[in-house]
Amino acid sequence: MAECLFCGIASGAIPGDIVYRDESLLAFRDIDPKAPVHLLIIPRKHIASVMELGTGDGATLGHAMEVARQLATENGLSESGFRLVVNCGPDAAQSVDHIHLHLLGGRALGWPPG
Amino acid sequence: MAECLFCGIASGAIPGDIVYRDESLLAFRDIDPKAPVHLLIIPRKHIASVMELGTGDGATLGHAMEVARQLATENGLSESGFRLVVNCGPDAAQSVDHIHLHLLGGRALGWPPG
Repeated sequence: MAECLFCGIASGAIPGDIVYRDESLLAFRDIDPKAPVHLLIIPRKHIASVMELGTGDGATLGHAMEVARQLATENGLSESGFRLVVNCGPDAAQSVDHIHLHLLGGRALGWPPG
Repeated sequence: MAECLFCGIASGAIPGDIVYRDESLLAFRDIDPKAPVHLLIIPRKHIASVMELGTGDGATLGHAMEVARQLATENGLSESGFRLVVNCGPDAAQSVDHIHLHLLGGRALGWPPG
């Protein structure tokens, strides 16, 4: 795991602008934000992608959705709205092989989503 | 709930091109697809949006992620990749007030996601 950027942020070995942490999840600001609010919510556990979800990992991702709701509220997005995005694999340009949920808000988001 | 389009699809009152169903979830093809594969995964339970998630709903959404993995595999996307998107509220142009997970794949998806 030493080579995984997001495991490094989770362990504290690599700095990150962390906005939330609990026993199973961490959230921090995207270093290349695409919206006024652009957060990444990740499991502490190294899961490479949606295709690599194992037993119990679904529950962790469900918890990530609940944390997204909380972070949206804290960032003033509960009325204006936001988009949650998970990229998996090359066609989605998944950039770090540690599953992460993007939370984007603070501007109108076009359709299609890429 | 009679007025909710997706509750209508879940109950069978409104036709949908359904590709998956289990006790808690349903998946069907988007009627206005934005990619060669564009599916919607919804809970049978009426949940208006991420902001309305209640106790236990996170687990259902986690299960939706697992179903997304299965549907991606069935649709030949496990190697090429795919994007999962949940819109919440006006800035994300959420179009139906029944929470739904978009699964898009079969083409390269740009960044930012809208």
